[in-house]
Amino acid sequence: MRATRVIEALPANTPFVGPERLMRETGRSELVRLGANESPFGPSPRAIAAMTSELERLAWYGDPDSYALREALAARHACGVEQILVASGIDDVMGLCVRAFVEIGGIAVATRGTYPTFAYHVAGYGGRLETVPYTNEGAADLEALSALAHRTRASVVYLANPDNPSGAFIDRDRIAAFYESLPDESLLLLDEAYADFADPGQLLEPRFEERLVRARTFSKAYGLAGARIGYALTTQHNAELFERVRLQYGVNRNAQIGALAALGDEDHLAWVISETASARASYEALAHELGTAVLPSRTNFVCIDMGNAAQATWVMNELLERGVWIRKPGAPPLDRYIRVSAGTAEMREAFAAALRDVLATRRSVATP
Amino acid sequence: MRATRVIEALPANTPFVGPERLMRETGRSELVRLGANESPFGPSPRAIAAMTSELERLAWYGDPDSYALREALAARHACGVEQILVASGIDDVMGLCVRAFVEIGGIAVATRGTYPTFAYHVAGYGGRLETVPYTNEGAADLEALSALAHRTRASVVYLANPDNPSGAFIDRDRIAAFYESLPDESLLLLDEAYADFADPGQLLEPRFEERLVRARTFSKAYGLAGARIGYALTTQHNAELFERVRLQYGVNRNAQIGALAALGDEDHLAWVISETASARASYEALAHELGTAVLPSRTNFVCIDMGNAAQATWVMNELLERGVWIRKPGAPPLDRYIRVSAGTAEMREAFAAALRDVLATRRSVATP
Repeated sequence: MRATRVIEALPANTPFVGPERLMRETGRSELVRLGANESPFGPSPRAIAAMTSELERLAWYGDPDSYALREALAARHACGVEQILVASGIDDVMGLCVRAFVEIGGIAVATRGTYPTFAYHVAGYGGRLETVPYTNEGAADLEALSALAHRTRASVVYLANPDNPSGAFIDRDRIAAFYESLPDESLLLLDEAYADFADPGQLLEPRFEERLVRARTFSKAYGLAGARIGYALTTQHNAELFERVRLQYGVNRNAQIGALAALGDEDHLAWVISETASARASYEALAHELGTAVLPSRTNFVCIDMGNAAQATWVMNELLERGVWIRKPGAPPLDRYIRVSAGTAEMREAFAAALRDVLATRRSVATP
Repeated sequence: MRATRVIEALPANTPFVGPERLMRETGRSELVRLGANESPFGPSPRAIAAMTSELERLAWYGDPDSYALREALAARHACGVEQILVASGIDDVMGLCVRAFVEIGGIAVATRGTYPTFAYHVAGYGGRLETVPYTNEGAADLEALSALAHRTRASVVYLANPDNPSGAFIDRDRIAAFYESLPDESLLLLDEAYADFADPGQLLEPRFEERLVRARTFSKAYGLAGARIGYALTTQHNAELFERVRLQYGVNRNAQIGALAALGDEDHLAWVISETASARASYEALAHELGTAVLPSRTNFVCIDMGNAAQATWVMNELLERGVWIRKPGAPPLDRYIRVSAGTAEMREAFAAALRDVLATRRSVATP
């Protein structure tokens, strides 16, 4: 069978290899999971309790409107229920946004090497991605992104804030100025997957405008990555555009229930944020001990400088040999870093021991 | 913001209203749920146990390859892991199939009034749906579908077997002949959501050919509708086409775990199938008692004849007034039926009592 022109033209690649495949391929029965920025502190006990008691009703479809959750989110974000679209994680939100606004042959703009699923969707819907590199400090280059959006008349501009994989954070005033600087034909897709780790007072103020879609998730600070649930904050009009094509019954029933219970557990969230800050500090201290540096991070992961891209790749592979799974940025100038997710004290110790061992090996190889 | 031409042209409609919205709109705190063909017998206790013990690891993404589940499915269907694609239910599989094979402006063919999500996806991806009506016996008209596929050079032909909403079943020889009769440029998307209720010996034999995608689900006999998990059986080549654009991390982790455990519980499945047959028989007896007829069904629902479309709609609405939620087919010649899902004995009794009451009201109104 002949696939559509768009699908035929796509490469058969995979945006991310999962740890389960790495375990199959290396014959390991477990890994220290520090590669996908999953929360090592787990979901709220309230979320687990709520989901446990509802498992026996998993024969029921979830509410296709995710109404109870959207009501709670509307209260939290001081907006209307109609301005919220719940989907199967931010990946799903991004797909809807690209599908709704990028024509076949249309242009989207992003930072080269940022979270790759946006690029995946742009290609998957037949668009063309134009990129600019990170600055040498590892942040998105807002001026260059805006200039590129003007030059290409981009339909969608993607920005993750805080950024993944760099961890960089851009405060509200600079984001607002960037948004204002974009051309009228460009929608800003602001990926706020890690915003729960940032100071709320420094985040862009809530705005509900046609040219702005903000994406949030329960995968990170809320520890519900496996549930697949996230949402878009935007105008009612944009939400209705997504509504026309989204999988109406696509969100797992228990994910809705878990997310709603998690939203109500502020104490767990505060504890996760505090533990995550400790994890970042411990990675910074480790880097200092090892004579290297980290990129500043407002997320649940830290990039540690390995000097150059080949070394960073080698270190990542050597860590995997030692049972520690991390990832690394793929594009310069960040490709000389490894990226390690916040872990519990035990996971951090396993990572630190493995990294010390790997770097000692490197030194003994380099200076025999 | 201007959406893409395809999205702008779509109506702002909803394929199905969920029972939660009906409850909100009618102010009810519960409904007898007999409208979505959900299993009233619930998931396997083994699935519930497996999911319960894994809830605390829901901070982990599910395996993007759903490998363990695909291995079990490959053993069950005597095929390779590469010939199976796991997705968020059959709705997701259908979306991938339309996206991969129907160009903007391309043609798809289906029976008018069959499961509506196929039509939803065809419109959503900019295709055009051509339809033929059900036969007066409530079955798909295979000759007319094939002729239409030839006349329109359709990219995808959709057939649900057993069918929803009619419940009709077409045996293997007729399905095989239909498949063979289709033009070379048409792919058959065979929706087997309800196949677990049919006699395995009467189902189309496993075939893995480029022009055939079979879709299966854990939503019906396995009682995991709320988990959102289904799969495609097809060629490795087709699975790889879907792989290029699917949400790589889209399937809930606990859904994978629950489905795998459910597959291993043959006893629960056999019990559900047997209870479902009892439910069908009880609806048939009820129809007989009420002086009307049912369509033959090999599924977990039954269509009961209400005489004409207006009566059927009125009965459906009156049942809702009495706290019983069912649905009805929308297109002739099936629009004179109401469709009721298999329920437990208690749910069936609630339905029967409400239906007797509604029909008694009708008679007293009609002959005052």
